[in-house]
Amino acid sequence: MSTTASAIVAAFAELIQPVSGDLKTVIEQPCAQEAPKERGICFIGDAKHLTQLLQSPIAALVVHTKMVAKVSELAANSKIVVLSSKNPKLAMALVDQRFFAIAAKLAPFDGVRVHPTAAIAKTAKVATDAVISPHAVISDGAVIGTGAYIGAHAFIGAGTVIGAGSIIHPGAFIGHNCKIGERCEIKSGAAIGSEGFGFATDEKNQHHHLPHYGGVILGDRVHIGVGTTIDAGTFEPSVIGEGTKIDNQCHLGHNSKVGKNNIMVTGFIMAGSVTVGDNCVFGGGIMVNGHITIASNCQFAPLCMIVHGIDKPGVYGGYPPIPLRESFKVQASIQSLPRLRRSVSKIMKHLGLKDDAEA
Amino acid sequence: MSTTASAIVAAFAELIQPVSGDLKTVIEQPCAQEAPKERGICFIGDAKHLTQLLQSPIAALVVHTKMVAKVSELAANSKIVVLSSKNPKLAMALVDQRFFAIAAKLAPFDGVRVHPTAAIAKTAKVATDAVISPHAVISDGAVIGTGAYIGAHAFIGAGTVIGAGSIIHPGAFIGHNCKIGERCEIKSGAAIGSEGFGFATDEKNQHHHLPHYGGVILGDRVHIGVGTTIDAGTFEPSVIGEGTKIDNQCHLGHNSKVGKNNIMVTGFIMAGSVTVGDNCVFGGGIMVNGHITIASNCQFAPLCMIVHGIDKPGVYGGYPPIPLRESFKVQASIQSLPRLRRSVSKIMKHLGLKDDAEA
Amino acid sequence: MSTTASAIVAAFAELIQPVSGDLKTVIEQPCAQEAPKERGICFIGDAKHLTQLLQSPIAALVVHTKMVAKVSELAANSKIVVLSSKNPKLAMALVDQRFFAIAAKLAPFDGVRVHPTAAIAKTAKVATDAVISPHAVISDGAVIGTGAYIGAHAFIGAGTVIGAGSIIHPGAFIGHNCKIGERCEIKSGAAIGSEGFGFATDEKNQHHHLPHYGGVILGDRVHIGVGTTIDAGTFEPSVIGEGTKIDNQCHLGHNSKVGKNNIMVTGFIMAGSVTVGDNCVFGGGIMVNGHITIASNCQFAPLCMIVHGIDKPGVYGGYPPIPLRESFKVQASIQSLPRLRRSVSKIMKHLGLKDDAEA
Repeated sequence: MSTTASAIVAAFAELIQPVSGDLKTVIEQPCAQEAPKERGICFIGDAKHLTQLLQSPIAALVVHTKMVAKVSELAANSKIVVLSSKNPKLAMALVDQRFFAIAAKLAPFDGVRVHPTAAIAKTAKVATDAVISPHAVISDGAVIGTGAYIGAHAFIGAGTVIGAGSIIHPGAFIGHNCKIGERCEIKSGAAIGSEGFGFATDEKNQHHHLPHYGGVILGDRVHIGVGTTIDAGTFEPSVIGEGTKIDNQCHLGHNSKVGKNNIMVTGFIMAGSVTVGDNCVFGGGIMVNGHITIASNCQFAPLCMIVHGIDKPGVYGGYPPIPLRESFKVQASIQSLPRLRRSVSKIMKHLGLKDDAEA
Repeated sequence: MSTTASAIVAAFAELIQPVSGDLKTVIEQPCAQEAPKERGICFIGDAKHLTQLLQSPIAALVVHTKMVAKVSELAANSKIVVLSSKNPKLAMALVDQRFFAIAAKLAPFDGVRVHPTAAIAKTAKVATDAVISPHAVISDGAVIGTGAYIGAHAFIGAGTVIGAGSIIHPGAFIGHNCKIGERCEIKSGAAIGSEGFGFATDEKNQHHHLPHYGGVILGDRVHIGVGTTIDAGTFEPSVIGEGTKIDNQCHLGHNSKVGKNNIMVTGFIMAGSVTVGDNCVFGGGIMVNGHITIASNCQFAPLCMIVHGIDKPGVYGGYPPIPLRESFKVQASIQSLPRLRRSVSKIMKHLGLKDDAEA
Repeated sequence: MSTTASAIVAAFAELIQPVSGDLKTVIEQPCAQEAPKERGICFIGDAKHLTQLLQSPIAALVVHTKMVAKVSELAANSKIVVLSSKNPKLAMALVDQRFFAIAAKLAPFDGVRVHPTAAIAKTAKVATDAVISPHAVISDGAVIGTGAYIGAHAFIGAGTVIGAGSIIHPGAFIGHNCKIGERCEIKSGAAIGSEGFGFATDEKNQHHHLPHYGGVILGDRVHIGVGTTIDAGTFEPSVIGEGTKIDNQCHLGHNSKVGKNNIMVTGFIMAGSVTVGDNCVFGGGIMVNGHITIASNCQFAPLCMIVHGIDKPGVYGGYPPIPLRESFKVQASIQSLPRLRRSVSKIMKHLGLKDDAEA
């Protein structure tokens, strides 16, 4: 694939502006600022690798707007075309998606749109331009929307709807009675709509499973990572709002109600019946207790243990969650505990008091 | 599907008794007390939503025995049939399983019992009423019991036995040389009997894998969650006792010996060679050290780090596990650490002692 | 399968030496020292079960070199052939691999080397002695090396190379543009080379995915556990060095650079852009912060939270990681916190100071 600087500027005029150099310059690949490549395009937010980049064989450089003056000077004699953006990372995402899409990701196997090894139930409906890969299984009454991609070995349960343009990666499992929005991405090994973990215990201490009828609803543009599990609700659906992005190996229990544009990083485990607002960010390795509510616009540092509800926006950390700055103090205090114990011992001895603090 | 109040009372006479209303009332669906539905049946243990429920279009209400007097009064003029149970949650599980089973869960694909795309080894034995879904693989010498359901893309290893009535969900992996009991449920993406993580290290610091011959034995009615892994034993089988229920994304290492009717919630990670008794409950996010023994009838709060053996029943929490009530005190103390440090500083200053406690 | 003591000694002359007994003794199976079996071979590093073993029906016993004198005496009248090794665990791994390989692990399904249900793209290249199991998918331009084993339902992405002798277990996912070394083992449900979790956020707080072009490179003899995810790099590959062994349910984020012969135990979660040296050991449940570097020859105790870089070899534990011995003191101090608080209260009262430490 290749494009030109002018095509990029034309496509994203509000986000990307020309600074210097020839806009007809041909660009062939995106690359990392640490590893510039021939005819590549780089997006930078700071000047860390600027000097090396300007001497490298890249074709184009997109810099943060605030760097324009400095770069203009340095790039005066360079053949590299320089563009600017108020958000170079966003520019990179949008340019890469638009001009340098990964062909292998969505290519029909051997060029065959609906592979003959796929098992498609008689009552299922598949849009005429959807891709169905080898060994995929589309169950009774399922509906596959226009432009959707169903990967190899993916399983689509009975009555489930896959929205337009959604990508179901190889080996993903979508249970029955689910609704996946448009332009979602469900990664390999994820399981959406498996029955929740709910049991009733009898007098002999035997546990009896509660059937889960609720399924799962994902809004548009939801991202579900590899191996992540979103369990079906007991009676009503578990819901993940549009634009929420969930990383690999996360778990959201039955009856989850999650809002829009949240980010949940690897190892996020949320027990059942939790409500989450919009625009929250959850760092890695976070766990959330069941039956609580978390307000919109909260940020949680990695490893935060959210054992109680959070009712106002803020930046939190620790176990239990407290304002992040305070959680740093607590964490620092833990490290100085042995010294604190010695001080208290010293005081007790000084005062002739009996020392309760020695283990 | 539909049933009547009298059919329910007849099926579970010891657990469910009539209180008031017409037992011939037709019931069409179970529903949540927060979202009552037309001709639905609700099971409640407290009066939280009682008033709304009695004004809703549900057909039947099963209340806790202790609520009978109160409900009788309130429901005097209602068309809703009222039943009572000493254990409404258990009543819900059993009634839902019996009268409102989820058809899509076990329906043969396109009505075909043994799908032609399944790969069944010549030496495998499949019961005449077992369901084998598309693209399932049944290896050499495997035995599929009567009434068992093998989901799409499930893999059954060589010589493995699947007990009567067990459900192997789509994409589950059961290794060779395993024995799955009757009426088990193995969820999508679970892996039973993969070789354990054991290595011997040579003088060049290269690690050499130890073959694992032991396989895995699951007792009857064991539940294995999505993505959960139970590794094969080195020489002898890893064993999970009957009735034990394990949630999504748990891991039990090689040579595990787990008893009956335990519950292990999401994120439970147990290192190898651990022995667990019966009737334990492990909350979410718990980790267990290798080569230890945990007594029967223990309960562990979420996030408990079980770094040593537990030899008597009790309720535990913390890291390391201590009686739960004490672990709450420790946890609370951690939060007040910065204040404690300030107090010690103040004392040291007051006494003119050198302060070791300030970081 | 069966072999003889002399064949074992001949195969591993430097590692295993004869001590006493008839080297022509036939050996039929390896077994655990706790469960000796007829004509079995046992490997022991200490004398814990020695007496019982010498009275058991095993055929051969391999003891640590330091035990030779003691065992010679005890085994004088035994029919058991006794061998010695400076590293009995390594001897067990190598003897078991060589003489008692698990046939079911690599047997072609129904004896058919390339199963007709596998979907192999026209442009893929498969070595003439590789095994391709039922329903495997080999994508465009993929290359399967000599002696490689591709399990049922495994997915090999476009342009990906699988090295000679590597084992891709049933249901494993290898994305496009990856390179798997020789004699690797990728377990069921693992996902290598899925795109990393990277997003850019716009002014409406919508998150836009960054395409990941880098793929993953695994060196020779790398082991990837069940459900483990190694995400593709953004532009350059994520790399795992030769001989590194990773357990079940681990996650290594995009742009990981991991060296040789490391061990990572279950639940290991490493954020993106981390560099790890060689010969490290990471215990269970460890998390690693993004964008840091960890030196070679480090050992981390289970549950260590590696929130900052580690620049010299050592044995670490705790959160944040500190030398293990010190982390034990901190951990012990936490448990005595409630007592410490009481002591400080007592002192404050004694001195007539206002007590800030009481919650």
